[in-house]
Amino acid sequence: MDVEPSLDPAAYEFHHDIRVRFAETDAMGIVHHSRYLPYLEEARVAFLRHIGHPYTEWRDAGIESAVLEAFVRYRNALRFDDVVTVHVALASAARATFQMSYLLTVADRPAATAVTVHGAVTADGRPTRLPTWLASYQQ
Amino acid sequence: MDVEPSLDPAAYEFHHDIRVRFAETDAMGIVHHSRYLPYLEEARVAFLRHIGHPYTEWRDAGIESAVLEAFVRYRNALRFDDVVTVHVALASAARATFQMSYLLTVADRPAATAVTVHGAVTADGRPTRLPTWLASYQQ
Amino acid sequence: MDVEPSLDPAAYEFHHDIRVRFAETDAMGIVHHSRYLPYLEEARVAFLRHIGHPYTEWRDAGIESAVLEAFVRYRNALRFDDVVTVHVALASAARATFQMSYLLTVADRPAATAVTVHGAVTADGRPTRLPTWLASYQQ
Amino acid sequence: MDVEPSLDPAAYEFHHDIRVRFAETDAMGIVHHSRYLPYLEEARVAFLRHIGHPYTEWRDAGIESAVLEAFVRYRNALRFDDVVTVHVALASAARATFQMSYLLTVADRPAATAVTVHGAVTADGRPTRLPTWLASYQQ
Repeated sequence: MDVEPSLDPAAYEFHHDIRVRFAETDAMGIVHHSRYLPYLEEARVAFLRHIGHPYTEWRDAGIESAVLEAFVRYRNALRFDDVVTVHVALASAARATFQMSYLLTVADRPAATAVTVHGAVTADGRPTRLPTWLASYQQ
Repeated sequence: MDVEPSLDPAAYEFHHDIRVRFAETDAMGIVHHSRYLPYLEEARVAFLRHIGHPYTEWRDAGIESAVLEAFVRYRNALRFDDVVTVHVALASAARATFQMSYLLTVADRPAATAVTVHGAVTADGRPTRLPTWLASYQQ
Repeated sequence: MDVEPSLDPAAYEFHHDIRVRFAETDAMGIVHHSRYLPYLEEARVAFLRHIGHPYTEWRDAGIESAVLEAFVRYRNALRFDDVVTVHVALASAARATFQMSYLLTVADRPAATAVTVHGAVTADGRPTRLPTWLASYQQ
Repeated sequence: MDVEPSLDPAAYEFHHDIRVRFAETDAMGIVHHSRYLPYLEEARVAFLRHIGHPYTEWRDAGIESAVLEAFVRYRNALRFDDVVTVHVALASAARATFQMSYLLTVADRPAATAVTVHGAVTADGRPTRLPTWLASYQQ
């Protein structure tokens, strides 16, 4: 992981809105910190659909995108019914791994930044090459 | 579903303790109602292990236990760090389905009752016969 | 709970779409049965917003809508990336409780039916009266 | 975050076992990556209880331990029914934040490493001082 996610929404090529469910809050009255990772995943899936390589295409090809590393910095709490905008970018891609960066905002205020590192694996979990389009992907 | 779960712990043949995680609470300061179903599942898995038919045995035989119906009555809220005792019984078994009943208590006070109805399915999701031991199981 | 949810979408006054997250699937390759309850909740919150009584209004008035009972019948499995339409109706309302019924469909095929029973509680969890609009609500 | 979690269990002062729930698996047949954070939290809560400063003591004092950052490196997949040993250490403590490091193992094989950074906040979410015992805590 060598990516520093930007606080500037313009640095991201795609964004996706998610409304916070009550089920995602905790007894501190805010969204539980573990619940951000499914938000990142939902935005990642929407991003892949947006660029014409939906995740179902990966799965049909027998490839899964395994999460190798995840990092989240929590900046301002999320609350029930907030509409969270997840800004997403493909930050880098190598032969076997790629990195995604994220900025979460609510009403244009930063709520969190995050990075996930991914590798491609076969259906039975063995590492494999990334799809070729990914290595040559230009924002 | 034709089972009425008892409020008497003695009516259940097995019990299993679960400590409430902070991640399972919601902004009302109590355990979110959706979180009871994984508690029932964990207790069901522990019960099957206890009677010598662990769920891994089912899966090794290519059988999954699909949940067909679930009912929960929430009686007293669960809170962070509570130790919940899940009392479990195999309430009935027919050729293709079986019913489990549950009583959840905290410090001997009823917190919830529940019933789940299950069928056996193959790995690709088609209904199949229950394991034979199940139909002849006596508490 | 005395409601039998209809399999006819026309019997419901409102519907709300939810796309299945990968995080909501389980090792059977389908949506885990516990994950339906947050779907019902999200649709309920959207319904209340739609009829002009958003749940945030309840919370601002110091009232929470406690779930007293929940029942789900699982009919056809949900899978990753499915767009689930949750049809919702306010099935009945009494002085202290109300019942909601639900039909989940994917591409017009029934996936599940459900009922939830609710009561109003104060912020510290004591039962209180339902909002007056609710008792007189007509579909 | 400036901690590099060790792969040597002996580097951790406490460990806590968690059995994987079926509800925590995903359609890849492994534990979903978001589910590790509640495991870390459960182990952290058990660690604080173990050293005589249970998290309920914090909450009674009006202090919450907010998660400021979380990092997980996924090394080997976790599966249903695995017994995961979460090794925990208080890696560092400053005036306003502290860092915890984690090693997850299954049958002595590393499954993941992680770091969480925490700050103390009041019940209404404002930063406050850490409990004094924490700054002077010696492993």
